[in-house]
Formats: sequence, C-alpha cells, structure tokens
Amino acid sequence: MQSNKPTVLASLLLFSQNAENYIQYVNPFVGTKNMGHTFPGSTRPFGMVQLSPETDTLSYAVDGKYNPKVYAYCSGYQFQDSTIVGFSHTHFSGTGHSDLGDFLVMPSIGELRLNPGTSTAPEKGYRSRYSHKNEHAEPNYYQVYLSDYNINAEFTSTTRVGFHRYTFPQSDSAHVLLDLMSGIYNYDEKNVWTFLRVENDSLITGYRQTQGWARTRTLYFAMQFSKKFKEYGHKKYDKQVYRGFWRKFDETKDFPEMAGRQIRAYFNFETHDDEQILIKFALSPTSTAAALKNLDTEIPHWDFDRIKKEGQDEWNSELSKIRVETITKSDKEIFYTALYHSFLSPIEYMDVEKTYAGLDGNTQYAEGFTNYTIFSLWDTYRALHPLFNLVQTKRNSDMMESLLAHFDQSVHPMLPVWSHYANENWCMIGYHSVSLLADAMVKNVLNPNSFQRALDASIKTANTTYYDGIGFYTQLGFVPDDKNDYSVSKTLEYAYDDWCIVQMADILKDTKASSNFGVRALSYQNVFNPVVVSMAPKLSNGKWRSDFDKLSTHGQGFIEGNAWNYSLYIPQNPQALVELFGGKKSFELHLDSLFSQHLDDHYFAQTEDITRDGIIGLYVHGNEPGHHIPYLYNWTDAPWKTQSRIRMILKTMYGNSSDGLCGNDDAGQMSAWYVFSALGFYPVSPGSENYSIGSPLMKSAVLSFENGKQLKITVHHQSEENVYIQWIQLNGKPINRLYLTHKELIDGGNLEFQMGKKPNKNLIKTN
Amino acid sequence: MQSNKPTVLASLLLFSQNAENYIQYVNPFVGTKNMGHTFPGSTRPFGMVQLSPETDTLSYAVDGKYNPKVYAYCSGYQFQDSTIVGFSHTHFSGTGHSDLGDFLVMPSIGELRLNPGTSTAPEKGYRSRYSHKNEHAEPNYYQVYLSDYNINAEFTSTTRVGFHRYTFPQSDSAHVLLDLMSGIYNYDEKNVWTFLRVENDSLITGYRQTQGWARTRTLYFAMQFSKKFKEYGHKKYDKQVYRGFWRKFDETKDFPEMAGRQIRAYFNFETHDDEQILIKFALSPTSTAAALKNLDTEIPHWDFDRIKKEGQDEWNSELSKIRVETITKSDKEIFYTALYHSFLSPIEYMDVEKTYAGLDGNTQYAEGFTNYTIFSLWDTYRALHPLFNLVQTKRNSDMMESLLAHFDQSVHPMLPVWSHYANENWCMIGYHSVSLLADAMVKNVLNPNSFQRALDASIKTANTTYYDGIGFYTQLGFVPDDKNDYSVSKTLEYAYDDWCIVQMADILKDTKASSNFGVRALSYQNVFNPVVVSMAPKLSNGKWRSDFDKLSTHGQGFIEGNAWNYSLYIPQNPQALVELFGGKKSFELHLDSLFSQHLDDHYFAQTEDITRDGIIGLYVHGNEPGHHIPYLYNWTDAPWKTQSRIRMILKTMYGNSSDGLCGNDDAGQMSAWYVFSALGFYPVSPGSENYSIGSPLMKSAVLSFENGKQLKITVHHQSEENVYIQWIQLNGKPINRLYLTHKELIDGGNLEFQMGKKPNKNLIKTN
Repeated sequence: MQSNKPTVLASLLLFSQNAENYIQYVNPFVGTKNMGHTFPGSTRPFGMVQLSPETDTLSYAVDGKYNPKVYAYCSGYQFQDSTIVGFSHTHFSGTGHSDLGDFLVMPSIGELRLNPGTSTAPEKGYRSRYSHKNEHAEPNYYQVYLSDYNINAEFTSTTRVGFHRYTFPQSDSAHVLLDLMSGIYNYDEKNVWTFLRVENDSLITGYRQTQGWARTRTLYFAMQFSKKFKEYGHKKYDKQVYRGFWRKFDETKDFPEMAGRQIRAYFNFETHDDEQILIKFALSPTSTAAALKNLDTEIPHWDFDRIKKEGQDEWNSELSKIRVETITKSDKEIFYTALYHSFLSPIEYMDVEKTYAGLDGNTQYAEGFTNYTIFSLWDTYRALHPLFNLVQTKRNSDMMESLLAHFDQSVHPMLPVWSHYANENWCMIGYHSVSLLADAMVKNVLNPNSFQRALDASIKTANTTYYDGIGFYTQLGFVPDDKNDYSVSKTLEYAYDDWCIVQMADILKDTKASSNFGVRALSYQNVFNPVVVSMAPKLSNGKWRSDFDKLSTHGQGFIEGNAWNYSLYIPQNPQALVELFGGKKSFELHLDSLFSQHLDDHYFAQTEDITRDGIIGLYVHGNEPGHHIPYLYNWTDAPWKTQSRIRMILKTMYGNSSDGLCGNDDAGQMSAWYVFSALGFYPVSPGSENYSIGSPLMKSAVLSFENGKQLKITVHHQSEENVYIQWIQLNGKPINRLYLTHKELIDGGNLEFQMGKKPNKNLIKTN
Repeated sequence: MQSNKPTVLASLLLFSQNAENYIQYVNPFVGTKNMGHTFPGSTRPFGMVQLSPETDTLSYAVDGKYNPKVYAYCSGYQFQDSTIVGFSHTHFSGTGHSDLGDFLVMPSIGELRLNPGTSTAPEKGYRSRYSHKNEHAEPNYYQVYLSDYNINAEFTSTTRVGFHRYTFPQSDSAHVLLDLMSGIYNYDEKNVWTFLRVENDSLITGYRQTQGWARTRTLYFAMQFSKKFKEYGHKKYDKQVYRGFWRKFDETKDFPEMAGRQIRAYFNFETHDDEQILIKFALSPTSTAAALKNLDTEIPHWDFDRIKKEGQDEWNSELSKIRVETITKSDKEIFYTALYHSFLSPIEYMDVEKTYAGLDGNTQYAEGFTNYTIFSLWDTYRALHPLFNLVQTKRNSDMMESLLAHFDQSVHPMLPVWSHYANENWCMIGYHSVSLLADAMVKNVLNPNSFQRALDASIKTANTTYYDGIGFYTQLGFVPDDKNDYSVSKTLEYAYDDWCIVQMADILKDTKASSNFGVRALSYQNVFNPVVVSMAPKLSNGKWRSDFDKLSTHGQGFIEGNAWNYSLYIPQNPQALVELFGGKKSFELHLDSLFSQHLDDHYFAQTEDITRDGIIGLYVHGNEPGHHIPYLYNWTDAPWKTQSRIRMILKTMYGNSSDGLCGNDDAGQMSAWYVFSALGFYPVSPGSENYSIGSPLMKSAVLSFENGKQLKITVHHQSEENVYIQWIQLNGKPINRLYLTHKELIDGGNLEFQMGKKPNKNLIKTN
C-alpha cells in the first residue's frame, strides 16, 4: 500500500488553493469545562503526542475508596481550576474513563519542590497559579503564563514529538521537573516500573510501565534540552528501594541512571532574564532507541515557530476537507471545533520506522499500513468512523488494518473492543469492530485484499463464546439477565453487529455466514416484551425479569442508557422497530413522549456518563446509545420532527466555549454527530450505505474527498427559523426520499436543500 | 568473525577420536552442601538455561529484616534438605549473592495446592519429599523421584531450552504448576511484573520482570507441553489487582491471559499410569517471539534422550580439552567436576538469531560475536578467564566482545564490574574487566580489531571519578578510609588493574597511557604502613587510621579478606611485595605465619563468604583475595613451600562429594584455581604471560588447544607423598625457572615434571 505522504501533500496542495484559515475557528477549550473531557493542549491530527496541561492530578483512590472527583480529570484539565501542575504528553480526548498523562514536565524557579502541592496551597508544591487571561490555545499550539514563577510556557508538536518552549526570568535556580509518578486516573500501584537515563548533559531517555486502564502499558521517551543542565537528580518514593548500588554512588544526584516505581527527577539551570529553554520530547511505543530516532527525524532543529506553523498548516489542510459557511460565526466555531475533535483519535501508534508494540507484547512492523490505537469502539462506530469513510478514507483504511493486526496478535482471538496502546481494556460492550469493517467494506474504503480477512475475523470474534455472554446469546438467542450484566443492551448490540457481519458475508457471497448471522441479527425480537412495550431483561428460564424500572440506567439489563433509549436500538432495521411499537403513529407518539418526559434527579447518580446537561426529556444526547434516535421520525409519517429536533439539538447541546459539550466527547463521537448533523445527514445504520436526512445547519458546505471529487452542499433560505426542508435536489434532480447514499455523496456534485419555516408535509414522503 | 560452529564441530571430532567418557567423573552435587552454592541440575556448557531443583525458596526478608538462612540458597539447592519445591530455569553457579530462579515448574497430583508449603510441612503445599537414593545427576541430566506424588522427574537441556520429562501415575487430577512468584533471594517487592499467555491448548508464552540483584531484569519464555491440558487457571496475589476486565471474564480459569505482579498458574491433566508429560521450556532475553524461535530451533522434536545425549556429547567434548590421568579416581572426579564448574558461566545471553537485551534497555544484535552475561569479575579475573585463554579461546574472545558491547551501551560509560543480564549490579570492587582484556590481549586471544577499543574503554573506566573512590584515588594516590569503604582493598586492586592497562598500552605503544597508569600501578606503596608491616587504612589527611585490627575482614578498609591476606596483594609485582616485607627471608617467615596462625571464631561472623572450612591459619582459600598467596613462596628462597602448600590445598580444600567445596565456587573461580593448580601452574598475574609453577597433582595431562596443538604433561614419580618437583623439562630442555610462559604452553609439545619426596633445593633457583 502507498504511504501517507501523497495524501498529505495532496491535502496541503488543496489547502494552499483554498487559503482560508480554518484553525481560527477552532477553540481547543471547548469541552474542557464540566464533563466534555477534552484537552486544550497541542497535538497533530491523529498524533501520538497530546502535549497538554494538567490542572490537577488526583488519586483514583482515597483511603481505599474511589474518589469521584477524579472523573472530571479524564483529560487532565478542568477549565475552572486556577493552578497548573505541569504538562504531560498523552491525553485521551473526551473518554469516559481514562489513563495516560505520561511524562509530566514542569518548569519552576527558586526552592526546589518535588511534590506537586495542592490546588488550595500551590505554593507548597511545584505547581503554579495561572489565569485564563494569560492562556491561549490553537490547534498545535498552547501557551500559558505560570504566574508563580514568572515563566511563560509554550507548546507545539509533531506526530511523535512534543516541543516545549519556556521563557524564564533571571534565576540561579531554575528547574525543569520530570515527574514520573504523575498520571491520570492514578493510584499507588499504577506505576509498574520507571527508568531514566541521562545520556549526556542535555539528553534523557527512559520509559514508564503502568498498570492502569490498560493491563500493562509501556511508553518510551527521549527528552532533549536546548541547554546543558548544571546538575540533576531525583527522589525515589518506593517502599522498597533497589539495593544494588553497594554504597558506591549517591544515586540521588548527578547519577545518570534512575530506576524504580516512583520517581521524580529534576534538572537545574541558571537562566538570564527572558532566556528560553526548549525541550523536544519524543515518544515511542517500542524503545528508547526508537524514541531517539523519532525525535531526530521529526524535529532535526530548534525552530519552534516552524514546527508550530507546519502543524497548523497540517490542521488547516485537514479542516479544509469540509469548507462550510454558516449563519453565525459561533456555528462555524462549533463546527470546526467539532471537526478538530473528530480528528484527534485514533492516534498513530508506531515509530517513524513503522515499529510498534503488538497486543502480544512483541515489537511488530506495520507492513504496508499506518498503525493506530485508541479505538473507543462502543462510541465511535456510530458516526466517527463513518465520517472517516467520507473524509479520511486513507486513514480509516489503515485503521481497519490496525484492527485486523490487533486480531492477528490477540490470543483470544478477537477484534478490538477498546484498543488501548497494545492492550485490550475490554471497556463497554458489543463487538463493534465488525461495524467498522462492514461500513468500510460497503463503502469500498477497506483494502479489497482484506475483505476475506475482515469477515473471518468478524465471525471468529462473534463466536468467542466466553466473551461477555456470547455463549448464552448464541444458545438462547439473547443474553439472560440472571447470567450476565447489561443483558438487554448486549443482546441488542450483538444483533446489530451480527447484521453488520451479514453485510460483509453478502459482499463476499458467503451464503452460510449470511444466513447464520441473518438469524442472529433478529435477536432483538427476543428481548422485546410486548406487554410493557419495551425491550426488557429476560431470564435464562425464558421469563421476564420482574423488578424492572424502565428509567434506570444500571442494574436492569442496560448500560449507560435506560430501557426507554435502548428500546429504540435496532439500527439495522428501524422499520421493524416501528412495527414492534405498533406502527408509525404509535411509534411517533412514543418518540414524542421520549423527548418530553421528566427524569428524576436520582437517576443521574447512577452513571457518571449521563448528566442533566445532556438530556432532553428522557433522551440522552450526552451519551451514545441514543444518538440515532432523533433521526427515527424519518420512519414515521412525521419526518419533519427529525428536522426540528436535529436543529434543536445542534443549537442547545453544543457551544463554542469551554462548556460547549453536554457530555464526554467520547473520542470524537459527540463531535462527529455534530459534523454529520450540521451537514444535513447521519449514518443511522453504519454498515449500510445510506445516510438518513436531518436538517442542515450550514448555509453551504464543500466536502473534498480523497478520490479527488467534491460535493457542494447549498442550503437555500437557510436561517435560524427555517429548520424544515422544503425540497432536496442532487445535481438538479429531486430527491424524494429521506436518505442519501454513500455513492451519491462521494461521486460529488451539487446537493441542494430548500429550507422553510414550516414543514413541507407533502413533498417528502417517508422512506 | 567466524561462528561457533566450526569450533564445536572440531571439538566433537576431537572427542570422537578420544572416546573416553569424561562426564562419568563429574559429580554435579559437589558444592551443593554448605556454602559451595553450586546447583545439581541440567545445563549445557555456558548455557543460558540451568534447569535445577529448588529445595527451599525462602524470603530474603522476614519481618523487614534480612533472613540469614537465605544465603545457603544462592543456587536454590541444599543437599541436606529433604523436600523439593520445584524446578526453575536459571541459577548462578557458586555466587556469593544471588538472584534468578526464574519460572519454577512443579508437577503434582491430587488436591490442587498453589502455595509451596514449608520444609517441615511439605504436605501443606505443592512441594514434595525426595530422597538422595532416588536422585541422580550427570552433566546435562538430572533426575529425582517425587515421593509425595509418585512422579519421576527428569531434566535435560539445550543452550536456551530446558526439557522436562515427568512420569505420572494414573490420576484424574494431575497438575503442572508454574509459579511466577518463586525466586531466589526473593522478597515481596521483587516481582515487577509477570505475564502469561496461553497461546493454544499446549503452549504458553510470557515473561517476568524483577528488581532483585539486578535493578530490573526481564526474562521471556515459551513453554510447550507434549500433551494438551484439560483446563488451566491461576491465582493472583497482588495487593491491588488490575481492574480492567469489566466483569466480562472469570479471569482465574481458562482465560488465556494472566498478568500481575504475583501469579501462580496451573495446568491440569488426566494421566494414565506411567504416562509421560514432557515440557520444552525456552528462554529469551528479548521477547516471547524470540523464545518461541529458540524453542523451535533448538528442540524441533520430542526426543528427550536425544537431547540428553547431544548435551552429554557436547560436555564430553568440552571436558576432553584437558585429558588427565590421576593417582586416585577421586582426584579425577574432583578435577573433572572442577572443569565442569569452570565451564558453566559466563552464560550465552542471546537468542538463536543473535538478539539480546542491551545495558541501555534496547534490543541489540551481536554482530560478529556471541554475547555473554554473568561476569562475576572480582572473582573470575584471577584464574577463570586465564583458564579460558588456554582452553576456551574462541569463547573468551567473544566474552571480551561482550565486555566491550557492555561498555558501548553503558551510560557511564564503564566496562562491567558485575555484568548481570543486561544490568550492572556493581557487586564488589575494582574494575577488573581491564584484567580480562589485558590478559586476552597479551595472550592474543582478543580480536586484534578490538585492541584499541579495549584500551580506550579501560582508560575511560579507570577515570570514572565518581565510581567508588576513583576520584580520591586519582587525586591522592589512594582511597582514603574516611571517605570510602574498603579503602585499602580498593587501592590495591585499582593499582593492579592500572598495571593491566599498562600492559595494553605497551602493546599499542601508547607511551602516555603506559606512563600515566604505570605511576598509578605503584599506588600500593601509598597504603603500606611500614610501622605495622602491613597494608593499612589511610585517612584523607595522610595519617593512618588508628583503630585498626589486621584480623578483621570488614569495616577496616578491607573487603572479604583481612589485612593479613590483602597485604599480600601486589600480583603485578610480587618482587616489590617481598621488598616491602623486608626481603626474601622475612617474607618467607611472614607467609609461614600466615598459614599457621589461629583465627578466633568471632571473625567468621563478619562475612558470609568466609567459613571455617576454607581456612588454613589465616589463609582463606574459601574466598578470592588470597588465591595467589600459596604461590608467593616462588619469590622467596623456599619455592618448595609453594609446592607442598599447593598439594596440601588441593587435597584438603576440594572433595568429590556434596561438601567438596570449602566456600562459594564463585562462578567457577574456585574450580579454575583447582584446574590450574592440579596441572602444576597458576596465573599469579593475569595480564602477564607467565604462569607460576606449583606442584602438579596429575600423573599426566593432555591439553588440546583451539590452535590445533596439544601440550602433553607427564609427571614422573607422581605419588601422594612426592609433592616436590625435582626437575622440569619442556620438549626435552630443562626449565630452570619457576614459571612457564603462555607461548610455551600453547605451542604445545611435552612438559615433564620429575617429582620426589623431598624438595630439590638446588635444582630450581628462584625467578
């Protein structure tokens, strides 16, 4: 397969032809307040480095109990905080659990303090106060003034290297700290081992191995200072310390190897006023030697501004793949920030020489593809990867190869559930890799050579009977609630995933697989209880569970969504859903009631992932299981309710400031929902080539595809009030249905919407 | 450089020409009782695998305090014990500290017990009673009957693979345990991380990472059973357990990944009576993939007896490099056991594809050489590596390349002090790598391309001022006792090492280095106090330390030897030593008194390495600093006292049974002393090409060198009483001196000794 290069160059060329500065519309602070779990720091598109500040580093456990405060710090940064602990190199974007926060660096002056201090008494530790007035973030650039030290801190990055620029005051005791104990979702035993090696007077290498959300994860680094340090040292906080030095050395000072579980290191300098000390900090999944190679390859100079510019050009090139005009500037900011957040992960997870850590613990070589990690699939199969199938086709093809490589390395063997730095963290439910593979196969994004591999891996995954109730599911046709948690959610999602396998089998004319999984795909029928008109938990004896609260989100057979929302989850066949609910009118009324009911406060305590901010009635936009629901009116006689509902959600659930996300961005899924919906369509059934039509928020949009074609979307009579579609034309021909096909989009041309204040109940009939 | 193959083939050919079975004389139990610290298990010459039983696995610390009992278990086995805990794959031979004991395997039947139990109540754990009557050891083969389970256990090995054969009784609950918590010199925090992966129904891979004597050491494995297991599982003993499984799996049973700090796994079988289950267990320093490759390459079949025979042929080939005839069978057994113990370490430390773990933590490739580890240099520079320079020249050349590779990878940069599985454990004192390099250079064993590298690395090592008092030493000419431990021992050993550097510099005509280090080599003068006629601790102010007990071995400026012994340590210039002690007669009387004084018991409590067994007067044969001392009469007018003393030591300090070593074998040094001395000469000054003549114990010996030549030693009138040399002839010409040169030996020919009951005081004049 070809390398990334041509695509990037083509994109850059494209950008230079369309020289609008899109990065000005991106606000990296969006989602950093409350529970968006985004980070404001510097990163390249899908880059391995996310160099970003931590405003607190709380321990996961206090007195042996879970500390609920830590959930706010999934990405290390909370906008309302007033101190910064330091700047670390890895952050998830928008996840509902976390990890990472590797290699926290912090400059300081004066007395050397190696403990981080607390937010209420920052002066007792190395952290510093800061103010949003002296803080600035753009794609690939973050700046903050650390007022306790009179140090200005700036950051930019390449894919694998973080670039720090600290402007110091005059000081004879300036420090740069490297805290290897600091981490996100940290706890006492999380560090497995850490190692630092002072290679010479300005270069450090090392690694950290952790058991966190990943069972065991090792990340290597190389850290190059622009200035020689005067002296250095470390403190070790291990309970039992390595005893091997035979009293030969004072290990703590100017001794070039530091190893243990809990280490904080410092490097001392003398600085004159306004002196800048720069640090290039490279990561590697495989070795310190590879980290050094990554460092030397990606930043072979000390020109910070050049790296910043190259990164911003790259961002502009990515963002310009969808060029929109909006009614308000705020809409444009929300849109490009959403697009920015959609292009953060999965991340490239390999060295410049294409080596990476495999799931089997061995160093692997990414032959013919770019390897990616961070697949939060329960979230991202819905809209993020479908978005990539439109505007990141080369990358999504490589992501599919990464899933298949994971499968090959897995001992189970299974496709990823949640792929996490050479680990499977098994988070959430389903086997939604198959949705990604089916969608990429249906849309011809998957390499044809991988079609059969994809189907084989999918079938094996779906038949791993010891995984999460699959044994029961294949035996009984449903996951019994007395045998397995979240039984109904699992049954419904397995059924959808099985339908995805049917799509692949049909392409490959595998009639046996198509037939087998076709039957499995109907399993939603087995958990629909017509008596209560709801999906409901069923027991292994075939009886329905008696104590069942449709509103509860946990402990009732459902996960991160209650029965009201999950009952609407048959994305593979909304028509069948309508029938289960008694036909179109009855279903329409059911949807109406979903959006209008009140949910009591006590239900919010049940899951961290659902907050009042993200709720409309019982509909939960702040979490995934219902993201397709607003589009379901398209299967009733009132599709205009989808149109108004979509515009309402676009306007109320997203914003252009730090509180602009109503829930976790979930590795880009929330943002990808916005991008699709703002363009006017959404992939209700990934694995199908159809996009369900909503109501565009744009005045116009130009999508540039990697096949060289462009789709120009023009929205006539667009305004805040004109949320209803009057007519649709593609290349001048009317579209008398409520979906568009993938081929229609990627073949390019002109897509036109005519909007109005009132629904056109006649023009567009239901599909 | 050429590969090992031709040498091995040549050796095998040599063996087939001289078909005597030498392995019959080897008793692997020698040294397993008391403090010899040898192991009885199966290994190849210099093999990576030492597959041997543990008779106890005590914790290093009990209630936070050092447990003195653990010292006896440096190699895992104590002959007087009556239970066996299991069989692990790595063991040091004869070291005075320890580590290793990786991957303990134990078969059992009946109730599954995962704890090892205790020696007094073995039935409470998985260990078994055994009896020496049902136990047998040969080179590359060990067998024991486990009476608690009616299981016969047999072991053989290749360089990288241990081969187990268990003969079970009929049982529906037969088990094979794999205890990853078990280790030698173990303590609670030693395990850093462990991982097991059940690749299929009979193959396991994994690794263990420990912080023990090595700062952090990772060893990978692949474990192939000959029979599919019925079920498997593990128990985890971690304080905080990985939380990532989302209740999806019962991780403890039939789940193919097991990870954590403290894990014991089991594999269950049904067996019929006399059913054999075999296990191939391969090690790798770099990865599980490499371990699998090592396994498949070295044992591509299940023929246990073939591997045993191939290994024994290889041992015979190595042992036949010195073919001796002795007065008694017991002497022959002691000799070949000593030769066997001399050929156990350093061990090959690389995969079949030549990859190994570097000191910098990166995977390295051994370009053009075989990489070795376990260099216990304070011990082995004295006689073991000089022995290799005679009869293991290819290997010693590769060992020198291994030292230089270590230097290249070291951040300090320094040559090894104690090279330990990609770690430097800094054990003991000196920088004796330079002695090895000098000796190999002087004797033309070192690759000429490496001469300059060797000198450069040696000079850099000797000038690492922050290492162990070198800063003071280079400034003051001695290590001051108020600034650094073991000051006198260090000064004396540095002075000798510096003389070694002079030898290299002279070969390379580096007059500056020769002159600089020539001065440093005289530093022994700075710690000789003529008032007390002894080497003595000197303070940084130039005054002698006042509280000084010449008999004490610790805390007085000396390490593992008292002032009496260390005062005789100027190996680079015994002549100068004689003069310091007032001339030949005075020195001779001093030596006489050394061998005849009584040492009070309380001195033995001072160091674990010196026991009553290894003492003659004040002379300590059981530890190294005095190993050259019996030869020092050669520099007086009474060289015959060396002759009688050597014969006396050979007879009293070595035996052919389990208590046959009077102290730690120290990675082969004690045994190499025996081999040399039994042949009639000894390298008093490694780095010189001279061997000092003692008194041969053999009746005859044939040394086969890798240059194709042979040295035939014939000892006329040899008997127990005839310990005095009457005359010596080399190729028919009289040798009228007390040394032989390296060239004289390796050029081959006939060396003849004529022995007698009384000293010939006239024939041989002193040198």
